[in-house]
Amino acid sequence: MAEANSRAEALIQSVTKKPGDYSPGLEGVVAARSRLCQIDGAAGKLYYVGYAIEDLVQNSSFEEICFLLWYARLPRIDELENLQKQFREYRALPAEATTFIELLPHTSHPMDALRTVVSLLSTFDTNPEKSPEANLHRAIRLTAQFPTIVATFHRLRQNQKPILPHPKLSHAANFLYMLFGKEPEEMVGKVMDASLILHADHEMNASTFGSLVTASTLSDIYSAVSSGVGALKGPLHGGANEAVLKMLQEIEDPKNVDTWVEQALAKKQKIMGFGHRVYKNYDPRARIFKEYARRLSEKTKFSRFFQVNDKLEQVMQARKGQQGIFPNIDLYSGIVYHQLGIPTDLFTPIFAIARVAGWTAHILEYWQDNRLFRPNAIYDGPGPRPYVAAARR
Amino acid sequence: MAEANSRAEALIQSVTKKPGDYSPGLEGVVAARSRLCQIDGAAGKLYYVGYAIEDLVQNSSFEEICFLLWYARLPRIDELENLQKQFREYRALPAEATTFIELLPHTSHPMDALRTVVSLLSTFDTNPEKSPEANLHRAIRLTAQFPTIVATFHRLRQNQKPILPHPKLSHAANFLYMLFGKEPEEMVGKVMDASLILHADHEMNASTFGSLVTASTLSDIYSAVSSGVGALKGPLHGGANEAVLKMLQEIEDPKNVDTWVEQALAKKQKIMGFGHRVYKNYDPRARIFKEYARRLSEKTKFSRFFQVNDKLEQVMQARKGQQGIFPNIDLYSGIVYHQLGIPTDLFTPIFAIARVAGWTAHILEYWQDNRLFRPNAIYDGPGPRPYVAAARR
Repeated sequence: MAEANSRAEALIQSVTKKPGDYSPGLEGVVAARSRLCQIDGAAGKLYYVGYAIEDLVQNSSFEEICFLLWYARLPRIDELENLQKQFREYRALPAEATTFIELLPHTSHPMDALRTVVSLLSTFDTNPEKSPEANLHRAIRLTAQFPTIVATFHRLRQNQKPILPHPKLSHAANFLYMLFGKEPEEMVGKVMDASLILHADHEMNASTFGSLVTASTLSDIYSAVSSGVGALKGPLHGGANEAVLKMLQEIEDPKNVDTWVEQALAKKQKIMGFGHRVYKNYDPRARIFKEYARRLSEKTKFSRFFQVNDKLEQVMQARKGQQGIFPNIDLYSGIVYHQLGIPTDLFTPIFAIARVAGWTAHILEYWQDNRLFRPNAIYDGPGPRPYVAAARR
Repeated sequence: MAEANSRAEALIQSVTKKPGDYSPGLEGVVAARSRLCQIDGAAGKLYYVGYAIEDLVQNSSFEEICFLLWYARLPRIDELENLQKQFREYRALPAEATTFIELLPHTSHPMDALRTVVSLLSTFDTNPEKSPEANLHRAIRLTAQFPTIVATFHRLRQNQKPILPHPKLSHAANFLYMLFGKEPEEMVGKVMDASLILHADHEMNASTFGSLVTASTLSDIYSAVSSGVGALKGPLHGGANEAVLKMLQEIEDPKNVDTWVEQALAKKQKIMGFGHRVYKNYDPRARIFKEYARRLSEKTKFSRFFQVNDKLEQVMQARKGQQGIFPNIDLYSGIVYHQLGIPTDLFTPIFAIARVAGWTAHILEYWQDNRLFRPNAIYDGPGPRPYVAAARR
């Protein structure tokens, strides 16, 4: 305990800003304590509750990761089976929710649809109970429902009938089944499962932090999760994988990379898929995803995207030298999804399908020792002055 | 400029925490710069863009305050008239939105309904433009629509036909008209207008901060505002005025105050309507609202609530002595609304109808110099450890 405390204190010292620093975007400011996720930015390592992300992708499943994040330990076999059973039970949406989704304009961004339906689901929850158990139950149900919301909206906007959840498939494979109407190949199901594991949590990222700010007023979990969806939508966060694909389509060919990068840097344009507030080394998730992208690109006609990315990485690292600007996960997730035949505007919803596990785990954890988020602003407007009547302005 | 900078630096010094401090809830931490709102917590003063709240309540209107917050200056007469015209034009909801509201369960909390409809409105916005002008336009339209959303849902849940917005009335009076179906008395309209002015902005409160976190990913204004609604719902924030009224109903009579307070403090129960993270003196909004509550209570049968509150204030101040625990705005807003015949669960939505002006003003301001909110967490979970196969757990 004393050791844990002194380690925590050392960490506080290392990450807390000096007095007098106003840190835009709260960079380097500690906003919460958490036992869920550890990022070693310098070493390029990511751990969920102490387990390295590489081990988890190799050995675990998204369902097991949900258990790990919600209970802060790995499940016994019966516990995992029980959670899988709950997931399968809750996958189907209430009929009223499907009716609402049918009414959404087909042109809606799927993230807008998802945020609206999450918010809507609160109105069907008539349980007044606010205990940790009741909220964990809501977290399980919401996580189970996310893929169904996304797939249902996607089918309906294409004038296709929604596909009911498969009673046997895993969370990841069932999502692909509900999107495309057929069971995915094993390799494809595994890639989607890995993607969900890799995106499940990432410490105080903007959407998790936003969901905690909402939760901290003791509002409900639907409010907090819809804040998360809304924040994730932005191109500086979850929306980045969508932007990467647009960039790749613009570059088109590995031979155009040099010129494209030169022009982009000259225009001070942000190059998507590179750099991260926390990682000062290769993003470990990008490394794993790059391998999937390579393997998939060998089998499909999209190998050019992989080659563009690979070249882009070399050019960026050569330019930035030792201080290196490294790829982040978004550089490779987009091409993986593209190779699986997933429409570009579903990339960020897939991120949400994974991250809802992290949002809800952080919300439940924060509520154990809740404190309202209420920072200050530096006022830099005019000083006190008398009111002036309209005619004299 | 130099003077403004050095004033800003002095402020930074005074409010920024010392290194090594982890400040739960970001208390005392600077999260942004803003020219919109200044709270002098020690003196119990509140200014919008330099104008004291007392002057604004006396001389201004909610519409003028919206202009003040969005443009950081008071409008000329023609500018104010133009904004009033826009508000009247945008009050009516798109027909599809009304259809959605009709489908919401009547038992929904009005804040859940409001959050869902705000989120939904994004799906009808087909303008791809993201310029500051386009977003200001969205802010004006959303602010104009808020009272209509709340009143429409309230009428429908009572199986009453929604009332179309009045083409002539002010923002505040029209809201009461849409709720009750008749034009409010002048004094009542003025009280509602004052309430909207008093609630329009309050620096880095949790819901404004939450909407900025969402906005900072460069997500859209609907996402950011729905985060604000979700955060405001919580009883540690906007939900407090609802909780105050429940407390008053429980106390029932001024003669019960002493015993009730004694018991509540013994149980370490939070006494709603007292204390504030920033005000260490009488909340200036509470002082103004108390006067309205007193005036209204002379005319209605609800004077007992006012007497309970007044007694509660005396008892709390006597108990806490010099360090005084002062009333905040929530102590008096609830009884004012109750006296106007407004159902308890619409108190927080009225707060939202006012605060949407502040949320949108802060969002537009923050986007002028945007920086992603991405703080850190202190990790206090287990250190790196090997994965353990399920059978051996």
